[in-house]
Amino acid sequence: MNAIHIALLGMGTVGTGVVKILASNAHNIEQKVGAPVIVKKILVKNPDKVRNVKTEAELVTNFDEILNDPEIMIVAEVMGGETPSKDYMLAALKAGKHVVTANKDVVAKYGRELFAAAEAHHTDLLFEASVGGGIPIIRPLKQCLAANQITEIMGIVNGTTNYMLTKMTKEKMDYADVLAEAQAKGYAESDPTADVGGFDAARKLAILASIGFGARVTLEDVHVEGITNIAIEDIEYARELGFIIKLLAIAKQDERGINVRVHPAFLPMSHPLAAVSDVFNAIFVKGDAVGETMFYGRGAGEMPTASAVTADIIDVARDIRHKVSSRILCTCFEQKPVYPVSKTESPYYIRLLVEDKPGVLAAIAGAFGAQQVSLHSVIQKRKVERSTELVLITYRVTDENIRLAMNTLLGMSVVSKIGNVIRVEAAEIS
Amino acid sequence: MNAIHIALLGMGTVGTGVVKILASNAHNIEQKVGAPVIVKKILVKNPDKVRNVKTEAELVTNFDEILNDPEIMIVAEVMGGETPSKDYMLAALKAGKHVVTANKDVVAKYGRELFAAAEAHHTDLLFEASVGGGIPIIRPLKQCLAANQITEIMGIVNGTTNYMLTKMTKEKMDYADVLAEAQAKGYAESDPTADVGGFDAARKLAILASIGFGARVTLEDVHVEGITNIAIEDIEYARELGFIIKLLAIAKQDERGINVRVHPAFLPMSHPLAAVSDVFNAIFVKGDAVGETMFYGRGAGEMPTASAVTADIIDVARDIRHKVSSRILCTCFEQKPVYPVSKTESPYYIRLLVEDKPGVLAAIAGAFGAQQVSLHSVIQKRKVERSTELVLITYRVTDENIRLAMNTLLGMSVVSKIGNVIRVEAAEIS
Repeated sequence: MNAIHIALLGMGTVGTGVVKILASNAHNIEQKVGAPVIVKKILVKNPDKVRNVKTEAELVTNFDEILNDPEIMIVAEVMGGETPSKDYMLAALKAGKHVVTANKDVVAKYGRELFAAAEAHHTDLLFEASVGGGIPIIRPLKQCLAANQITEIMGIVNGTTNYMLTKMTKEKMDYADVLAEAQAKGYAESDPTADVGGFDAARKLAILASIGFGARVTLEDVHVEGITNIAIEDIEYARELGFIIKLLAIAKQDERGINVRVHPAFLPMSHPLAAVSDVFNAIFVKGDAVGETMFYGRGAGEMPTASAVTADIIDVARDIRHKVSSRILCTCFEQKPVYPVSKTESPYYIRLLVEDKPGVLAAIAGAFGAQQVSLHSVIQKRKVERSTELVLITYRVTDENIRLAMNTLLGMSVVSKIGNVIRVEAAEIS
Repeated sequence: MNAIHIALLGMGTVGTGVVKILASNAHNIEQKVGAPVIVKKILVKNPDKVRNVKTEAELVTNFDEILNDPEIMIVAEVMGGETPSKDYMLAALKAGKHVVTANKDVVAKYGRELFAAAEAHHTDLLFEASVGGGIPIIRPLKQCLAANQITEIMGIVNGTTNYMLTKMTKEKMDYADVLAEAQAKGYAESDPTADVGGFDAARKLAILASIGFGARVTLEDVHVEGITNIAIEDIEYARELGFIIKLLAIAKQDERGINVRVHPAFLPMSHPLAAVSDVFNAIFVKGDAVGETMFYGRGAGEMPTASAVTADIIDVARDIRHKVSSRILCTCFEQKPVYPVSKTESPYYIRLLVEDKPGVLAAIAGAFGAQQVSLHSVIQKRKVERSTELVLITYRVTDENIRLAMNTLLGMSVVSKIGNVIRVEAAEIS
């Protein structure tokens, strides 16, 4: 069969990885597809830039040269960003070209519009690389677990923050030092907000929840807290209690609807996600039939992400060979209510600085009790000048009630400071 | 669109699970497929038997009633065993019906013949449930990781033995007691050979290696050792050295070809597979682009296995809706040599009982040295009557040389007994 010609939009890290894989595994891929897969054109900003990979593809600076080339059947978007990526993808779909993308921002924000265009123009739109880098998760959710009602997705989906929390845990480094090191190593951006603020994880969670629950979930639905105020004390106290702190992206579905949130959490050391260290990512999925499953691997980086993009290219090429398209597009068939984080329940870890004098504990316990918050344990930690640091673990309680209790505490003269308030996940405190 | 009618061969544990899922998630599945999926007929031995699930399907005792029913487009084989399962599957494929199976024995042994029939008759043949129960692994290997040259697959793919080893590790129970308990709980068969002897894992490994390496690997190619001679001492000494003992199914590919083996192994506690406990399974896969990935979940049981079978049914139904078939069949395009276990290399753990007298250590070290086996450490453990138990860890060495050294030791009068010889995997001893 004739070669299948493709174009790449962008030749940065991921694009370069795709070129490398298509060259080094060409024979293998040709066998799987039943035809060679050739990169014909690559959209770049500067065709004269020195590249660290050789390619026979034509480097073009005008997208129209790709759009109007009838031989190009697949467009792989690996340039990132929302603009002009989304417009290029939409134009390619409308021109009847299949689209593969690694772009979580565009998929999370414009998924509905892009899938509609793919369906209308009988094309494929695949995005395995948009969540979890090289980890197979989109296809497993859409196909392998298709028989399940998914009840919960819990992921470590941001490598930067997982690297930072791992460093803080293993080397007892504090947040500022770890951030500086991550930036020096290139793991964190000079403006690290998207990562440390939890927004990157939130976009990925919106995609995972939409697929898992069969209902569109947007970034706006996700409650987001970052890791910026995690102190070394929190990590140490977690360890003493048998927990590890991870930035979790959590989606749950119950009779109330869907809840989606990204925040740091205490996770029991025995949980499969607890062992996911450094830049590794993992997504834990619960289904009514399959029970607990987990998908683990490298969530970012040139070759892992390129692995997922190229897998999508191979899959589309197989579809082209078999003259089929749009086998599996948008699976958001339903509309489901999203309930706010204030109505979610979990045990909580609370670190307080209080005055070191008789009667303080009774006053604090009373303040919690008034908001229906039952305390499982109260542990006195170190003295800080004339105050004492307390670590409290609550029983299961709503987020709303914890906030009310915190407001009461803030108004009490014996409370010097609320050090931190962190949810405890995947553990029953009893 | 008209309903898609299917038939089940067998209504045991897995078949019952499939009936339950198709009923309870019917709405969800109909949306994904674009048509209802109806179980029209089920092949059973005894139609009058009381079942713990309701079905409107017709229970038939003669396979021809399914084979000759033109309305039935998908046959899901969930009866197990080689005969008559394989004949029924082959007949169904030849009649143009799509086949889904959970049968590792038949896929491992007759895969080539079945895939050829599927290709010739333009049908699908899916078998996600044959390895790892509910864990998505076949599709991830065939599709999501399709861009990779897979270099290594290492799995915990037998739940019975993993449950037993977990019990031995956590509760310090010995092998015989754990086996008796596993049999009482129904986790182990009354004849446990297939599980504890490693043969179940070997069949699954043959399937995984065939897909991962793109070359047919058969059960005969797999070197198999079971867990029957793992002693509580081995588990305890492993723990002291920072390891855990797991029954591993290992497939490696290098310039010499393919090596496939199932045996107990020392695994570092920090390895992602080390935390896979009880009846859980996990498959660790290394690809040249993606790096390390892992797939975790329940490797057996009614609902997890039924989850995978039903996912395959949904996928075939999607193909029927899109008038496509045989998109992805056999991917064993190449022939690759299999090299014997004697040529594989790893560090080894060796437990010996030796006479407690001067000069013994020098004699033993000399015997190892004569076979090019370098010892990393020798630790004296407890005294047993007038002997001493020694634990040795070697540097990386071929299996062949270890066997030669063991033969020499057996001939030495100071060596009372070779307690055990276990490979150390995924660790460099230095």
